[in-house]
Amino acid sequence: IQTVAASAALVEKGNYRHFMEKEIHDQPEGCQRTIAAYVDTLTAHTAIPGEVDWARLERVQIVACGTSYIAGLMGKYLIEQLADLPVDVEIASEFRYRQPALRKDALAIAMSQSGETADTLAALRFCQAKGMMTAAVVNAVESTMAREVDVVWPIHCGPEIGVASTKAFTAQVSVLTAVAVAAARARGRIDEAEEQRLVRVLLEAPRLIAESIKLEEAVRSIALDVSRARDVLYLGRGPMYPLALEGALKLKEISYIHAEGYAAGELKHGPIALVDEQTPIVILAPFDSYFEKSASNMQEVMARGGQVIFITDPEGERHAPAGARVVVTAPKCDPLIAPLVLSAPVQLLAYHVAVCKGADVDQPRNLAKSVTVE
Amino acid sequence: IQTVAASAALVEKGNYRHFMEKEIHDQPEGCQRTIAAYVDTLTAHTAIPGEVDWARLERVQIVACGTSYIAGLMGKYLIEQLADLPVDVEIASEFRYRQPALRKDALAIAMSQSGETADTLAALRFCQAKGMMTAAVVNAVESTMAREVDVVWPIHCGPEIGVASTKAFTAQVSVLTAVAVAAARARGRIDEAEEQRLVRVLLEAPRLIAESIKLEEAVRSIALDVSRARDVLYLGRGPMYPLALEGALKLKEISYIHAEGYAAGELKHGPIALVDEQTPIVILAPFDSYFEKSASNMQEVMARGGQVIFITDPEGERHAPAGARVVVTAPKCDPLIAPLVLSAPVQLLAYHVAVCKGADVDQPRNLAKSVTVE
Repeated sequence: IQTVAASAALVEKGNYRHFMEKEIHDQPEGCQRTIAAYVDTLTAHTAIPGEVDWARLERVQIVACGTSYIAGLMGKYLIEQLADLPVDVEIASEFRYRQPALRKDALAIAMSQSGETADTLAALRFCQAKGMMTAAVVNAVESTMAREVDVVWPIHCGPEIGVASTKAFTAQVSVLTAVAVAAARARGRIDEAEEQRLVRVLLEAPRLIAESIKLEEAVRSIALDVSRARDVLYLGRGPMYPLALEGALKLKEISYIHAEGYAAGELKHGPIALVDEQTPIVILAPFDSYFEKSASNMQEVMARGGQVIFITDPEGERHAPAGARVVVTAPKCDPLIAPLVLSAPVQLLAYHVAVCKGADVDQPRNLAKSVTVE
Repeated sequence: IQTVAASAALVEKGNYRHFMEKEIHDQPEGCQRTIAAYVDTLTAHTAIPGEVDWARLERVQIVACGTSYIAGLMGKYLIEQLADLPVDVEIASEFRYRQPALRKDALAIAMSQSGETADTLAALRFCQAKGMMTAAVVNAVESTMAREVDVVWPIHCGPEIGVASTKAFTAQVSVLTAVAVAAARARGRIDEAEEQRLVRVLLEAPRLIAESIKLEEAVRSIALDVSRARDVLYLGRGPMYPLALEGALKLKEISYIHAEGYAAGELKHGPIALVDEQTPIVILAPFDSYFEKSASNMQEVMARGGQVIFITDPEGERHAPAGARVVVTAPKCDPLIAPLVLSAPVQLLAYHVAVCKGADVDQPRNLAKSVTVE
């Protein structure tokens, strides 16, 4: 009875106007459930379900679509940097139909909220046929993907109703962050003390995401302005590059504004041509090793009249060049969890812009929650 | 004296309004020069400069920015499919600053028209420091990259003046096509007869590009319509996916219309939300193994009112669903060279749209020809 009641509560909107808003606010609790399943809170070690021999693994191949693809790209950044384990990420619809050159000593990871995405499932089966070990990061543990893989990594975030994925994205990233730490430890790239430090950092994420959600009012105050834009660019470097892609995808999906995410270093190789006085530019730049370069990109777009929305942290706020239209300051955190902590303002911006436009946030035009046909 | 005269001729516009227009029209001759340097026309074998032990090579790592990155992505498709040799392609500005997981038994290929692109040069040096063998696909053979690599692969297309790259792109793709065939042969994936067949196919490319350029009038007839669009989507699958990215980048660079390229399979995972009656959708779909899926995407966007510009070949024209705003039919060709043959209408569309908008085609706002600073 308890279980049924909890499930019912999970699929009701409560005091929120839209499921998407509720699901953004669900994230501290959702991520806590996710992380609890991938670490041992007593010993502060990772505890990844299933048997993967990380030390002997040569590569990882991630296949996914849409937001899950972007979470996979974030996983590549995390796993390569922490574990020195090469990761390939590919859009499933491309991967399955071209003839990719694969080696079977790789772990294939399929990522799909529903576990039923047609192209991702086909890509997963392609990897299996090549003799690769397989894993699936899914929300639906009874799904086809979950049944067919060697290892299931559930995201435990509860049902996601809004078509634009939010809490499933941060849960996917949480899983891959824990996996990256585990792989780093197994491959001897970090010692036990560093593993414990990183696990404790990860355990801080839910609280810091909750802090970050408190930026809602700051974000809402610029939503009306952004809702009048024709185009929005999102720029980031390093782990903020996938988050820039995700921010743009969210805005595009629910507000129908043509938003595009770019690696900030590509700005001068094309997209800066779009920048004029009417263009909001969202720059994702916590005070990390990429900050100086991102600040320089900020000055370039401001010199062309671009209206900068600078999403950063307290140290980044102190060092940001003057002239941003608005600075949104997320709580200070370790770089490991910055993608999780900075997701909230990015999602909230898309949400409030769509609300300003009067769009049907939970059921955007032309889109379905799960793409189970090709 | 002959050389000087030829060089002078190469940097004058002749009867063309813009360098970009001239450079699009230069491509048959440019590609002929490129290809002649990478095949033996007498024996119909590939003849790639430098010593690369393709048979023992484990991987290829391509680093580049902007259009060169897109040419590199095309190279990945070609090399993986033909030679079963895994290829990673990464935006140089991301690659150089994050900590990528690399293995030294890979060949690093830097791609840059100028041979001086700052981020690409830094990425190249990073690979060298890791002990990787290096190659550079460059136009400027006296450039820093050409001097620093183990193997130089010049593109031989003559000086490119227009800021938006056209003939350098098709020359880069020509080089990587020849490299893919050579690697396939060296790795025993194709026999001598197939190598000779593919070399003869490649040698047909200049003539077929010239045929394809004759589509200029057909393309010009839709340019005014497209010039009024707020947004344009470019869709493709397989090797047409990188070309979709390139078409969108060209249009963005010189017309300032927000164009975006997508793998067509991603349509339902986000970008279809943008589609309405005002949106031109350029679908790149020769009659290849991907055609049926692309035709299905065409019907999906038409059902939402999207105006389809269908760029295909004669067989694709016969099988295309009814209802496209316009069908542009390039000459029939082997799939190996379809990216080269279909480049011309894609470039011409961007060019004529920009002319309709009265934009400064050769010197688009905010952009420089070579990005030699970070």
